[in-house]
Amino acid sequence: MPESPIRKLVPYAEKAKASGKTVFHLNIGQPDIETPEVALNAIKNMDRQVIEYSHSAGFQSYREKLSAYYKSVNIDVAPDNILITTGGSEALTFGFMSTCDPEDEVIIPEPFYANYNGFAVAAGLNVVPVTANIENGFALPPVEEIEKKITSKTKAIVICNPGNPTGYLYSKEELEQLRDIVKKHDLFLFADEVYREFCYDGATPMSVMNLDGIDKNVIMIDSVSKRYSMCGARIGAIVSKNKEVMAAALKFGQARLSPPTIDQIASEAALSTPKSYFDAVVSEYVQRRNITVEGLNNIPGVFCPKPSGAFYCVAKFPVDSAEKFCQWLLEEFEYEGATVMMAPASGFYSSEGLGQQEARLAYVLNQDSLKKAVKCLEEALKVYPGRLN
Amino acid sequence: MPESPIRKLVPYAEKAKASGKTVFHLNIGQPDIETPEVALNAIKNMDRQVIEYSHSAGFQSYREKLSAYYKSVNIDVAPDNILITTGGSEALTFGFMSTCDPEDEVIIPEPFYANYNGFAVAAGLNVVPVTANIENGFALPPVEEIEKKITSKTKAIVICNPGNPTGYLYSKEELEQLRDIVKKHDLFLFADEVYREFCYDGATPMSVMNLDGIDKNVIMIDSVSKRYSMCGARIGAIVSKNKEVMAAALKFGQARLSPPTIDQIASEAALSTPKSYFDAVVSEYVQRRNITVEGLNNIPGVFCPKPSGAFYCVAKFPVDSAEKFCQWLLEEFEYEGATVMMAPASGFYSSEGLGQQEARLAYVLNQDSLKKAVKCLEEALKVYPGRLN
Repeated sequence: MPESPIRKLVPYAEKAKASGKTVFHLNIGQPDIETPEVALNAIKNMDRQVIEYSHSAGFQSYREKLSAYYKSVNIDVAPDNILITTGGSEALTFGFMSTCDPEDEVIIPEPFYANYNGFAVAAGLNVVPVTANIENGFALPPVEEIEKKITSKTKAIVICNPGNPTGYLYSKEELEQLRDIVKKHDLFLFADEVYREFCYDGATPMSVMNLDGIDKNVIMIDSVSKRYSMCGARIGAIVSKNKEVMAAALKFGQARLSPPTIDQIASEAALSTPKSYFDAVVSEYVQRRNITVEGLNNIPGVFCPKPSGAFYCVAKFPVDSAEKFCQWLLEEFEYEGATVMMAPASGFYSSEGLGQQEARLAYVLNQDSLKKAVKCLEEALKVYPGRLN
Repeated sequence: MPESPIRKLVPYAEKAKASGKTVFHLNIGQPDIETPEVALNAIKNMDRQVIEYSHSAGFQSYREKLSAYYKSVNIDVAPDNILITTGGSEALTFGFMSTCDPEDEVIIPEPFYANYNGFAVAAGLNVVPVTANIENGFALPPVEEIEKKITSKTKAIVICNPGNPTGYLYSKEELEQLRDIVKKHDLFLFADEVYREFCYDGATPMSVMNLDGIDKNVIMIDSVSKRYSMCGARIGAIVSKNKEVMAAALKFGQARLSPPTIDQIASEAALSTPKSYFDAVVSEYVQRRNITVEGLNNIPGVFCPKPSGAFYCVAKFPVDSAEKFCQWLLEEFEYEGATVMMAPASGFYSSEGLGQQEARLAYVLNQDSLKKAVKCLEEALKVYPGRLN
């Protein structure tokens, strides 16, 4: 796997900090939101004397409560349709290995979460990108563009909804277009729905589990990481009504024995998080998004579509190369003692040469820091030597 | 992956328990030993408000303390030689993926831990077994037998020391034989050393990290699961002085983001477990082993080599098929309201047809239960219809 453009920046960020600069980290999706108290308390009050393996599919009690949670968000799945994994990462890896053979192809709208490449490599698959466009906010590419990419080796289409890195929320119509393609060509449809709770302006996410007539084709990936600000718990799930896929996934689950025990206890408890927690989180993110996106669009030459979900946006900058601009921000620039770290979007495109002027910003800092970060970018663009008029 | 003979028995065990029988579970390596208090307390006293990702290679503080632990057991490795993984399972998977290409071959003395097959499948590798023999206690097969298996596709030799399922502890001489083969053919040598602390009768384990002249060939796999009775924590490590291997492993680590956070905190604390804990555990296991192994050898027709490490033994029974015998024990037999569940050894052999009369017993129950379990087996063999002479 090639070095990612984000990781290339890490030494520059370290140098910047060592030199005394404040670095606003908009480059990663590690939220500063507190983990719900019910989850933290479950850990503190754990009364086990032996930290034993759980069932390879996860604790039954957790799967049952998770099924009830899904029903509460209008996704009708039974505990048997759920296998608890070590993070969403493992869920997608198991999903790929349970449905595809080495050398098979998976189609993914780009820009996409760069780690999908890693999971595909681990399963021996080839990623075939279909390009979405910043001009229309990264909507689903036209059906004919997707169908053009389908070959005899195509096994699946993978989406992230709401999306990382774009924040784009697919509409019912777009999901139904995907359903039709999947049905027509008998493909699997993977949907990474870990940002389900992060939808704004009254938008409601539609799960692929609610697409009619493709029960056996659909595999949903989930995780507690973002929902409960528990990225470090490494608890996810693979969800499908396809019994063969779930049986195969369980075999991979058995090979790795079990997902972490303590973290499942915390995740099970997290299901009792009060609605007020999410209301507060969503309201905070709406403000953060507005500060970031409106602030960016107010900078001459910058364009940033306003996303309806997740906590990322991708912006286009009037620069020669976003990779160089991001490095320069860390190496050469500071405004009032601070600078900004962003993720160059080239790392989210699989097609060579795309996204050269784009960067992803994760609006996971407090509002004051975000205001300062946007101001920083505004000042930086006034003096960046690689600026395009 | 084919269904394992142990998993086939699970429904029979469930039925036996539903019918009111006590089932002595000697089939799995889930110890009943309590997790050290220092580890449990670290979890209870955790004062983090956000359960964040750790570094993809694990917390630096943990890697530093782990390096000090290794030095204390005479293994000289730096924090940079250690990458924290989600269990030993992930360590071996990363190790395979970082050193081998699909279709490559790895040689493993059989019987071996059945999940190695799963990790090999996940990495696209073919396992080539070299057969060890119950008659000499599963000592390392002769060098010429191993060398016969080496082809242009052979990339590595994998051992487990002390061994699961055999409990066999390789001698310095055996390890030096392996070193010579590895050096001569430029192979990797993987050693799963998770049972290091479980060595009996004054035997001391030798780590492959201490084999001279093959620093770049050696990859050690470790885990907290058995050492601290923390199987459910899913914290392991891949340890190597080969920088290229570690850099590749880190890329796989980055793709899955991080090992679990809370569990690393517990594992780091577990490093302060007092020596008295291990003394008590080892002394308990010695007694358990003696009860089990001596008890088995006292049953007419049963042969069980006395292992020096881990908490397993493999016994040969005077039966037509250990698989059938194990199933019959659960389905048809009881003695004083109880029966025994063992793991048929055929599941630990990769060569078709081997180990048909053998079963693995994990002596992870208290001494009284083990005595009853052995008595149960003795009575069972008096009446088992498939008994040979």
